Amino acid sequence: MTIKTLGQLTRKSDRGCQERAALDELLDSVHTGVLSTVLDGAPWSVPMLFVRDGDRVLLHGSTGAGALQHVAAGAPVTLTVFSLDGLVLAWNAFQSSANYRSAVLRGYAKVLCRDEAAQALATLTDSLLPGRTAEIPSATTKEIAATMCLWLPIEDGSWLFKSRTGGSTPPPQGQTDTWTGVVPLRVVAGEPLRDSWNHAGVEVSDAVRAVVAAYPADGSPSVEEV
Amino acid sequence: MTIKTLGQLTRKSDRGCQERAALDELLDSVHTGVLSTVLDGAPWSVPMLFVRDGDRVLLHGSTGAGALQHVAAGAPVTLTVFSLDGLVLAWNAFQSSANYRSAVLRGYAKVLCRDEAAQALATLTDSLLPGRTAEIPSATTKEIAATMCLWLPIEDGSWLFKSRTGGSTPPPQGQTDTWTGVVPLRVVAGEPLRDSWNHAGVEVSDAVRAVVAAYPADGSPSVEEV
Repeated sequence: MTIKTLGQLTRKSDRGCQERAALDELLDSVHTGVLSTVLDGAPWSVPMLFVRDGDRVLLHGSTGAGALQHVAAGAPVTLTVFSLDGLVLAWNAFQSSANYRSAVLRGYAKVLCRDEAAQALATLTDSLLPGRTAEIPSATTKEIAATMCLWLPIEDGSWLFKSRTGGSTPPPQGQTDTWTGVVPLRVVAGEPLRDSWNHAGVEVSDAVRAVVAAYPADGSPSVEEV
Repeated sequence: MTIKTLGQLTRKSDRGCQERAALDELLDSVHTGVLSTVLDGAPWSVPMLFVRDGDRVLLHGSTGAGALQHVAAGAPVTLTVFSLDGLVLAWNAFQSSANYRSAVLRGYAKVLCRDEAAQALATLTDSLLPGRTAEIPSATTKEIAATMCLWLPIEDGSWLFKSRTGGSTPPPQGQTDTWTGVVPLRVVAGEPLRDSWNHAGVEVSDAVRAVVAAYPADGSPSVEEV
């Protein structure tokens, strides 16, 4: 196993970083989050696909989902998004940690009218599956009517971004005889698996290639190297 | 790019599956979730590391975290855990979807006393970093006192497990000229990155190897193949 060496500790300078660019980068690379609201005084949560569209986040679900109707009617929500970027093995358990990026958006989701929903659904599809709308039929009026499209604003003061990067915390004795450092983690795409009903000659499309490229196996590590 | 072919659609038989074994498998492989509660009538959420310990989930955080004290004082919580296992490219946008496993645990978290907390912290460390407690010093009394350890019961009726597996929904016309299928996604470990203060001869430890092995690059695909 090849061993690389970590650079200087960058935890303190990065943790709690509130940069909007870092928020956008997270929201544009991790398309799953947890939507939470309050129902009858108790928390209610569901994992969801989402995409960022400028200064808002687009969400969608079935019009039949009761809790989503509650959110559409004005219940406050949080959308929590995170990426586990590595496990940090320190010289002791207390300093052991995880490298991560996380965001919590707070606010009220608003329902998109039907015309806006058609555009939002196309944006959702092309953000999750780049270029896919050019390869498949447009959504029908019936499909759009069966879908609830919501958006959550990204406004100053309505979001919290946090991250941890870098190596473990240095030991008080200066050096260690036990290995310390980080095991980086990343989400990687496997080989596309074709449905049996594809015509024999059908090749992977540009959208399939774009999805695979969005989750590369050999991307840059999440921790700086010397 | 090598193309594999999907088996029969397994979506309907798998979605909404409530098996405890599937819940345990998810909780034992995905160690990050979103803890949500209600503060002043609004949802409050934070991503967290957790581990399953039999019929309970162990959580921990700083004793200084105000919202965690609110949870410790008896506020209702949800813990939402999910794994995005693939992106499903169907013959149209409406049927396009994601393969996933998700769980929402509901209930009330209870605080562990100091003796229980010491054992719980060791369980947390060894579940996240298998065998690590044998390689590093035991937690000190001061470290244990600075850590709030909570547990959430896994009880019948208190959790919801959902999943989607398999290929896309067959098109009404029977076959497609556009590629349809699944791009599988998985979390993969990269090469361990050593801190600069490791003595020159220090090799990766068993715990480091175990962490890497827990996130294999060549694991079985999340979608069945013919």
